[in-house]
Amino acid sequence: MEHSFIAWAKQRVSKLSQPEVGIGDDAAVLRASNRSRVVTTDSLCEGSHFLLAECGPRAVGRKLAGVNLSDLAAMAATPTDLFVSACLTKLPRRTKNSEPMMPATGGASNSKASLLPETTATGSSDGELSPSQVAVEIFEGIVEYAEKYGVSISGGDTNLWDGPLVVSMTAIGEAPEGGCWLRSGAKPGDHVVVTGELGGSILGRHLNVEPRIELAMLLRKEFLVHEATDISDGLGVDLLSLFTASRCGAEIELGKIPISDAARKLAMSSGRMAVDHALGDGEDFELLLAIPDSEMQRLPQELAGVRLTSIGRFVSRTGLWQRDGGKVRQLAPKGYVHGTSS
Amino acid sequence: MEHSFIAWAKQRVSKLSQPEVGIGDDAAVLRASNRSRVVTTDSLCEGSHFLLAECGPRAVGRKLAGVNLSDLAAMAATPTDLFVSACLTKLPRRTKNSEPMMPATGGASNSKASLLPETTATGSSDGELSPSQVAVEIFEGIVEYAEKYGVSISGGDTNLWDGPLVVSMTAIGEAPEGGCWLRSGAKPGDHVVVTGELGGSILGRHLNVEPRIELAMLLRKEFLVHEATDISDGLGVDLLSLFTASRCGAEIELGKIPISDAARKLAMSSGRMAVDHALGDGEDFELLLAIPDSEMQRLPQELAGVRLTSIGRFVSRTGLWQRDGGKVRQLAPKGYVHGTSS
Repeated sequence: MEHSFIAWAKQRVSKLSQPEVGIGDDAAVLRASNRSRVVTTDSLCEGSHFLLAECGPRAVGRKLAGVNLSDLAAMAATPTDLFVSACLTKLPRRTKNSEPMMPATGGASNSKASLLPETTATGSSDGELSPSQVAVEIFEGIVEYAEKYGVSISGGDTNLWDGPLVVSMTAIGEAPEGGCWLRSGAKPGDHVVVTGELGGSILGRHLNVEPRIELAMLLRKEFLVHEATDISDGLGVDLLSLFTASRCGAEIELGKIPISDAARKLAMSSGRMAVDHALGDGEDFELLLAIPDSEMQRLPQELAGVRLTSIGRFVSRTGLWQRDGGKVRQLAPKGYVHGTSS
Repeated sequence: MEHSFIAWAKQRVSKLSQPEVGIGDDAAVLRASNRSRVVTTDSLCEGSHFLLAECGPRAVGRKLAGVNLSDLAAMAATPTDLFVSACLTKLPRRTKNSEPMMPATGGASNSKASLLPETTATGSSDGELSPSQVAVEIFEGIVEYAEKYGVSISGGDTNLWDGPLVVSMTAIGEAPEGGCWLRSGAKPGDHVVVTGELGGSILGRHLNVEPRIELAMLLRKEFLVHEATDISDGLGVDLLSLFTASRCGAEIELGKIPISDAARKLAMSSGRMAVDHALGDGEDFELLLAIPDSEMQRLPQELAGVRLTSIGRFVSRTGLWQRDGGKVRQLAPKGYVHGTSS
């Protein structure tokens, strides 16, 4: 299937931003730039990061793009190019396919029909998708993000095998003027700031990742941020890795953590507190930032439509601490590095 | 395992060439360069591209690096950075491990022992490797190539799951002065030139890929090459994709194809001719070049220790043709896009 898929993909990306040389050669060529390049790579495995039968392949493509772009946002980089690699199960897959495969009109579906005849040949009405159809749907999910963030899909690789679905992406961006946000710059006294609301991503947000690209670029331009990471393993665990890199600790106030509706909903059935979900669930893909006190005065409560909340301070004493009125006690990070991932 | 593995990997690569920001942050930062960046990505799936139980994980790392670097060689790019992603089976794997896990001396093994205690905790003497051990061995295979070609290992991702082993790599390089070799530049009259000897890679060479990096850089600097690709699907198939991009055809003389000893050996048991193996086997990872007649006069028969052979000419008539004395007849490409891959 690779040759017909490449031909289709090449046509499908022709309206997106274009690299110097894109899909179809031995490698892609990205235009020279005087900025440093920022590069991240992340894979998603069926059964660990998604359930194909439940979410459908387009959601897999969206999530893949979302989590990789989230890493670039955490560096304050401007994304430019995506590279995709898919290991597709050889046999047809029975799966939900929320999007119509063959809309009545539109250039994309026409090119699908002409270049990937097998897409129509093997019936998909009963929810069975051929490897080509799975590949097309994953790609369409990625295209949604590429269009939204003005990024090229510049290359990739497809393989057929006997195993479940595995997708990998490498996302490339340009460093902002003055350099990226790194993990090692937090200073005692800096505010611990989180974007959005946390917890309960398993109820759906983990498949609809909103990478904080626009917010990060605004923050990088207008405010001094000492360091950043994105919340993928859970606030507690990611905070720990952040202040460990900076050789300090953090004191947070649990009452200040912005809790998502999903975390509250989950708490009703999980037997855990909503704040525990916010602290530990992971896959929030919000940003966790160290912002100096002087900047906090002028930081708005919301930027690019996203809430910004100070939940505590970085402190010179190492470890994660909970401040409750006058009392301070140690807090277990509790981040559940989610069941099956690393 | 991810945090201890990252700590180990960070130390392991400290003697390699270094990017501006490497392993351990949300993304890597590559130094600004005035050259265009060349980027390729390729995945390998257990059961399709390797048999873990037979070859061991270090060979998987070597092959992963080899095939990705081969794509950069086909662009005449200078490799700079490798990014690796691995989806590791959760349970211990019974596999050949040709290299000793714990040599008595040496910094690398010490750091292994101190940072990855589980590497020693779960016994490996009977050929069972924990996910961490598999990850370390794959990484060591990649390090071999990184050292040989002066490349950084700049980032990656590890995941545990229930499926077989999948590894992905993105290799980044810099374009040569004057630009990369593309697939669309062959002109009728150009010689069809191949490097090395072809066929029978399944007998071992497919696991010990020698990317033609040095040769490509010498050729790019000293000779005019109209286009290039690497032979991964088989000479016939790759030749077809090469001249299709250039809208021409090729006439080759079967008797001139350099046949490897492995192809001859395989022919003794396969019932096929050695030349068929050379034409169709794939995974040779040699280069296929279009070189103008004027350059052929001064092209040596060997460069950087690698044989260079003209096996025919590009012609204006489309299609793949076999010239045998005065007769010309059409030739089926026969490249077997190998059984289980795309």
